[in-house]
Amino acid sequence: MQIDAAELDRWFARFAPDAEIVLGRDGVRPPSTGTFDLSAAAFGPGTDDERAVRSTLASRYDRRGEEVLLTTGAREATLLSLLSLLDADQHAVVLTPTTQPAEALSGMLGDVTTVAASPPDWGVDLDAVAEATRPETGLILAANPVDPTGRRLDGATVEALYELAADADAYLCCDERGRGLLSDPPPSAAALGPRGLATGDLSVAFGLDNLGWIAGPPAVVSAARHWRDYTTGGPSALDTHVARQALDREDELLDDNRALVEENRATVAATLDAAGLDWHDPAGAVGFPAVPEGFASGGAFCRQLLRETSVLFAPGDAVGVRDHFRIGFGVDPETLATGLDRLGEFLDRHA
Amino acid sequence: MQIDAAELDRWFARFAPDAEIVLGRDGVRPPSTGTFDLSAAAFGPGTDDERAVRSTLASRYDRRGEEVLLTTGAREATLLSLLSLLDADQHAVVLTPTTQPAEALSGMLGDVTTVAASPPDWGVDLDAVAEATRPETGLILAANPVDPTGRRLDGATVEALYELAADADAYLCCDERGRGLLSDPPPSAAALGPRGLATGDLSVAFGLDNLGWIAGPPAVVSAARHWRDYTTGGPSALDTHVARQALDREDELLDDNRALVEENRATVAATLDAAGLDWHDPAGAVGFPAVPEGFASGGAFCRQLLRETSVLFAPGDAVGVRDHFRIGFGVDPETLATGLDRLGEFLDRHA
Repeated sequence: MQIDAAELDRWFARFAPDAEIVLGRDGVRPPSTGTFDLSAAAFGPGTDDERAVRSTLASRYDRRGEEVLLTTGAREATLLSLLSLLDADQHAVVLTPTTQPAEALSGMLGDVTTVAASPPDWGVDLDAVAEATRPETGLILAANPVDPTGRRLDGATVEALYELAADADAYLCCDERGRGLLSDPPPSAAALGPRGLATGDLSVAFGLDNLGWIAGPPAVVSAARHWRDYTTGGPSALDTHVARQALDREDELLDDNRALVEENRATVAATLDAAGLDWHDPAGAVGFPAVPEGFASGGAFCRQLLRETSVLFAPGDAVGVRDHFRIGFGVDPETLATGLDRLGEFLDRHA
Repeated sequence: MQIDAAELDRWFARFAPDAEIVLGRDGVRPPSTGTFDLSAAAFGPGTDDERAVRSTLASRYDRRGEEVLLTTGAREATLLSLLSLLDADQHAVVLTPTTQPAEALSGMLGDVTTVAASPPDWGVDLDAVAEATRPETGLILAANPVDPTGRRLDGATVEALYELAADADAYLCCDERGRGLLSDPPPSAAALGPRGLATGDLSVAFGLDNLGWIAGPPAVVSAARHWRDYTTGGPSALDTHVARQALDREDELLDDNRALVEENRATVAATLDAAGLDWHDPAGAVGFPAVPEGFASGGAFCRQLLRETSVLFAPGDAVGVRDHFRIGFGVDPETLATGLDRLGEFLDRHA
C-alpha cells in the first residue's frame, strides 16, 4: 500500500543535515546531556516508571490511569486514535491547516471534510464546522495550539467544538502537543467529558522524543491499546524513565522553556516587523509568517534562503498553504539571532 | 476500525504483573543497570548513533546504509514491511505458526494463504509453499528461528523459500529477531538477493526493546520509510544510543547470552524429559512443548499452573496451536530452576 510522503519529514531529512541553522522544527531544543539522571535506567516491560507516568498524566485530565495510553510519541498517538475512531463508513471533520499525517491518515481511514482556517488570524469557523458535521460524523479532529499556524484556541472555542462533537455522538480529538508551552492553557479536550480525547507528547514543550499519550474515554483508549500491540507495544523503558523525571521536574523545565520561547518570540516579531512580514502572534514555539513578495511559494522561498544563507525554515506547501512558511523558534537565542540576521540580510538583498 | 486483541500481549499485560516467575517471554532477560554508559546520552534527531547503527547493520547484510531502516522494534518493522509490500489485491503466503501480529496484519492488508508447520519437528513443507504461491503472490512471510516453535530453518530451506519468492516476482520477508542467539546462523533472507528482506530487533538476543530494523531492497525500504513518518518517525535518540553500544559490544554480550540460553535449554530439556513432555529442541530462547494430558488447552494448563504455582507460561492458543505452550528460557538460571521445580511438582500432582 502506498502513502504520500510526509513532506515536512522528507524536507528535514533532506536539508537539515547540511543546514547550519535549522529554524523550522516544531518544538524546543532538546535538553542538554546530563539533564537527567540515567544511572538507574532499567530495561524491560512494566516498570514503575510506566505506572508513574500514566498516573501523573491521568491526574491532569481528571481521568484514571487506565484512561491514559502511553505511545511512541504523538505520531503514534494520532495514528492509534484515528485507527480506533474511524472506519471506511465514517466521517471526520478535520480542522486545517494541521499536520500532514493527521490530515492524510484521516482521509485514508474515513471520509473527510476539511474546514480551513484563514489568515491573518487563523481562527476556527465554528459555523463551518457545524455545517460540515453529518449524522455519520464520528470525529472532529483539532489541535491546540495549532501546528503550523501557532494559533491558540480559547476555552470557549474548545468547548463549542466539544459540544458540536457530543451533539453528533462523535468525539473531539485534539492534538495538544504544544500545550505545555502555554502559560494559562484553555481546558484540554480530554477533560471536557466522555466525548473528548487529547493526544500529546514531550516533543514540543520538553524537546524529548518518543514518549506520547492518548487520554480519553476507556472504550477508545482500549481500542487504541489493541492497535498498539500491532504497531510498537509502547514506548521503551528508557524513554519512559526520562519522561518520568521530566514530568517530576515539569515546573522547572517548562518555566525555562516558556521563558525561552517568550524571549525568542519577541526577537522573531521584531525581525518580521522590520521586514514588513505578517504573522499571527503565535502561542508555542512555531509561527507561520507570510512568504515575502517575489517568491512563487513557501518552497521556493525556503530553498533559496537555504542556498544563500544555510538557514532552514519549513514551507507551508507541505500542508497546502503555499504562501506561508513555518518558523520554529524553540532554539537557543544565539542560534536564533544568527539565523534572523541572515534572514534580514537575505530579505534586504531581495527587496 | 477494530482489530482482534493480540492475545499474547494481553495475556502478559493481565498476568505478568502478579506472577512470581515469568517463563513465557520471547527473549533474554534485559541487561542490568549500568551495562551501558549513558553519561553522554543525547536527545534529538539525526545523531551520529543513528548513522553508525544503520551502517553496522547494513554491513552484515552486505547492503548499503540506505537499505536499512531503523524502526521502533521488530513490531514496527513487521508493520511497515507489510504496509509496503501488501495491498488489497495482493496475496501473501504466511508460514505458521508465527507471531499473531504478523499473521493478523497480513490477513487484514492482503489475501493470505497460510502454510502450517506441524509437530513434532515443525519443518517447512516447501511443496505446500510452492502450491500456495499464485501469480498475484507478492510476499512469502517467514521467520528464522520461528517464534513460538523455536524451529531453526537451515540454509537450504531459506534459499528454497527465496527461490520460490523470486520465481513469483514476490519477496521473501523473514522475521530474524532470534538470529543473534544462533551460533552458526544460516544466511539472512536480506543477504540472498534483491527479493529478500529481513526484519529484526535487539529484543530477543540482547533483551533491549524498541530498536528494530528492516533490511532489504531500496524500493521497499523507501516505501517503509514513508510509512514510518506516519507511525513513529523512528526509534528515539536514547534507544539508538544504547543500540550503538550494544552492537559495538556484540561479541561480548551475545557470547554471554548464547551461553545463558544454552545452559538453560539443557535445564528445561531435563525437566521436560523427566515429565515425559515433548518439544522440538529449539534454537533461541523459546521452546514449544506439548500440553500435558488432562488439560483442555494450553490456556487451561497455563492458567491452572499460574494459580497454583505463580509461574507464567504462554499458551499456544494465541497462535492457533491449542495443544502446545511457549516456554521462554532467556531468564537467569536461578529463576528458571525455581520455575521448573514448581512445574515439576505441579505435574506430579496432576499426573
